[in-house]
Amino acid sequence: MRKLALDALDQLTLGATLLGTGGGGDPFIAKLMVEQAINDHGPIDIVGLDELPAAAQLATVAVVGAPTVIIEKIPSGSEFADAVRALVSYLGRDIDAIMPVEVGGMNTLIPLAVAAELGVPCVDADGMRRAFPQIEMTTFTLAGLSASPMSLADEKGNRIAFETVSNQVGEKLVRGSAMMLGLANALAAYPMTVAEARDAAVWGSMQFCSEIGGLLRAVQRQEEGSWDRFLDFADGRVVFDGKIIDLDRRTTTGFARGTVTIEDFADPSRTLRIEIQNELLLAIENGRPVVTPPDLICMLDFETAEPITTESLAYGQRVRVLGLPCADGWKRDGMLDIVGPAAFGYDVDYVPLKG
Amino acid sequence: MRKLALDALDQLTLGATLLGTGGGGDPFIAKLMVEQAINDHGPIDIVGLDELPAAAQLATVAVVGAPTVIIEKIPSGSEFADAVRALVSYLGRDIDAIMPVEVGGMNTLIPLAVAAELGVPCVDADGMRRAFPQIEMTTFTLAGLSASPMSLADEKGNRIAFETVSNQVGEKLVRGSAMMLGLANALAAYPMTVAEARDAAVWGSMQFCSEIGGLLRAVQRQEEGSWDRFLDFADGRVVFDGKIIDLDRRTTTGFARGTVTIEDFADPSRTLRIEIQNELLLAIENGRPVVTPPDLICMLDFETAEPITTESLAYGQRVRVLGLPCADGWKRDGMLDIVGPAAFGYDVDYVPLKG
Repeated sequence: MRKLALDALDQLTLGATLLGTGGGGDPFIAKLMVEQAINDHGPIDIVGLDELPAAAQLATVAVVGAPTVIIEKIPSGSEFADAVRALVSYLGRDIDAIMPVEVGGMNTLIPLAVAAELGVPCVDADGMRRAFPQIEMTTFTLAGLSASPMSLADEKGNRIAFETVSNQVGEKLVRGSAMMLGLANALAAYPMTVAEARDAAVWGSMQFCSEIGGLLRAVQRQEEGSWDRFLDFADGRVVFDGKIIDLDRRTTTGFARGTVTIEDFADPSRTLRIEIQNELLLAIENGRPVVTPPDLICMLDFETAEPITTESLAYGQRVRVLGLPCADGWKRDGMLDIVGPAAFGYDVDYVPLKG
Repeated sequence: MRKLALDALDQLTLGATLLGTGGGGDPFIAKLMVEQAINDHGPIDIVGLDELPAAAQLATVAVVGAPTVIIEKIPSGSEFADAVRALVSYLGRDIDAIMPVEVGGMNTLIPLAVAAELGVPCVDADGMRRAFPQIEMTTFTLAGLSASPMSLADEKGNRIAFETVSNQVGEKLVRGSAMMLGLANALAAYPMTVAEARDAAVWGSMQFCSEIGGLLRAVQRQEEGSWDRFLDFADGRVVFDGKIIDLDRRTTTGFARGTVTIEDFADPSRTLRIEIQNELLLAIENGRPVVTPPDLICMLDFETAEPITTESLAYGQRVRVLGLPCADGWKRDGMLDIVGPAAFGYDVDYVPLKG
């Protein structure tokens, strides 16, 4: 077990923004919630999956909605503990620890604040080690675990509990309800034991997030050899350096969708098109897929190396696009059915970044 | 307590079709469910509110969705008991009797089948004594009771439990979820004690429905004086006799909406326009409101006196339009806020049929 103190939050937040792959909601708001929680309750306990009893009960918490809405409708905080309490009353048993469903975006940090408020530890593991737009897109689903029962709460006191026949149906129902509740709600889902999580989760994703955040900070400080150390740790590569020349955005069916086109600095005949569905999902260079889901597309400001979220994309921005391989926890039969290009409606084959 | 046997079903079903005011779903499908239940479990117990202990626990059950969908997506039956079981597990206490939320349309009969399946009596009372398109449009809401917790179930095994800050928000959330689940789902709602129901419900609505059904059957058989006896019991009047000359229908935002225009047989300058939102809601003769909610508009085939549901309306149909006053249980402060013309978006004053 280790303690997360205020001074460790900076690099965790930066890592979360990077792993949000442009989406997952702006972690800055969630960081304020965690700071408040640490001030109120002291440093937060972070535990590994091997440090808890196998029978201990876990649940994930997350904000669900569209990032473009979440930045304008800031979570009040109490709805997350409300969602967990609704789940507890539905399960008929207490939650021993909170786990992030995605380490990437604001949902990396919210579980920390909720764990502190509930007085339980937060588990260093998750179901994505990146952000994905849909609830069923987890290594938990891949391992056959149910997202149900799950509960949705808003800041006004409305609560909805779901028990669904599949995680795909669950996603559809939660999304529909979130649209009715204003598209920025608290979800408690994937109740599971530690034994189940040991099999299904990506281990150590908080630690990974914190380390990659620290290495990116070194890049931003232009420390000697920092780019090499960063890419080496992430096992990734620079895919494209260029300028945004086209941008199309729309919020439809509960998601922030869009397309961004980038032109190479030196060679205008080279363009990279990135498809967005809350996150940066698919990168196509001159018709050829170069980064495909579940691998990560991260976009940085070319000068400052600050990660760019999809809602702050702008025409004329100078950017660096990175490709990072997905966590090893994804490498199971059925991965492409859940998070491959076709799962997002793209008629493209998966091209692994790492063979 | 009385027993509902198979031979009493015919006039109850006819009464339910009439009180459905063109909506509420076709009771014929629900009648088949009740026949099956009586065959399986024997005659169904119907009890008055004064025959149960004040502390006994009631809940209402209903199909929720659009009538135009329900006739094509027939309920399988098991989802209703599922919805009640989900509510029971949420409440943490058993249900002692089932009550209809609306006596009008198929939701008059479904509670009987569910009561038989669960082995509890069905209460002779409801929250409307007609059909209305929205969950919060009940004398229960008027008396300050909450529709929550309530639970929605589909035929596949999906269940959703709602706890909302108002019945209006509950309607919005249930409607949204029902749209995702295919718009024909089972709802268990308005858990209340018998003491609460005694204050809030319309008493004896099943009995009223059965009697008015019997009197309408007599009209259909062209028995001597049957029209007078029918209108006298219903306290209603014939509003219009004519031919449908225009019909506009659309299923939007979870409702079957539309407008039907009828021309007087003798005088083509007299037309009656009726606005539909699942039910026949507002009747306007040459610009003047003649029947306004919560009073009932019932449309009969002019020749056979068979009630016409909104989904079977057709151009050229010859119809008789009746106006019936709403149940006395509606006469409380706040009625027009919940079920007056403005509650349906009509900019028209309430014109009571009965002064």
